[in-house]
Amino acid sequence: MRIEVDNIFRGTGGAPGKEDFLTLLESERVKVERIVSHASSTPENKWYDQAYNEWVLVARGWAVLEFEGGERVELKEGDYLTIPPHARHRVDQTAPQTIWLVVHVKEKPGS
Amino acid sequence: MRIEVDNIFRGTGGAPGKEDFLTLLESERVKVERIVSHASSTPENKWYDQAYNEWVLVARGWAVLEFEGGERVELKEGDYLTIPPHARHRVDQTAPQTIWLVVHVKEKPGS
Repeated sequence: MRIEVDNIFRGTGGAPGKEDFLTLLESERVKVERIVSHASSTPENKWYDQAYNEWVLVARGWAVLEFEGGERVELKEGDYLTIPPHARHRVDQTAPQTIWLVVHVKEKPGS
Repeated sequence: MRIEVDNIFRGTGGAPGKEDFLTLLESERVKVERIVSHASSTPENKWYDQAYNEWVLVARGWAVLEFEGGERVELKEGDYLTIPPHARHRVDQTAPQTIWLVVHVKEKPGS
């Protein structure tokens, strides 16, 4: 058996204002993803709106999320939250390099 | 909408030689769990043997995993791996405090 180890901080360079996506594990119901934000923000008036629970951790850096309705959530290293289905949100600000770990749960909550 | 934020490094004290488990998210097919190992090791000849894929990240500290058959895997901060179903393994050594993030995928690989 060959066990493959990788590092979540590897190869995280990128252009300012951009986001890079890397799938770490994917199966029928679950996707684990690394997102690297380079001082990026979601365009004004664009909202992320996902059908399922999304569990999000800031592994490095910091970020400010904004939810539709005005709630702002400041996140520092180690902070995590669950973004409920259809909780429309955008990334307002991030550090020069913020590394997110995201677990997409492709099932209805409570099922 | 009230968004709850917590921190993965919060409340990680514990007794040497022990492991503490905290469920961060649980649904039908997915469990996200924090495990804090306090310089702990799995007892000799005890093997973890799980039915499903387990995705594991060292969020803080370091650890050595041992797989049945003798393969040893050294993990430092940020390292992650997928432990396949029935890959029998034990924790051989950890730092005084090692914080793991584990995603249990309760489905057959490839399904």
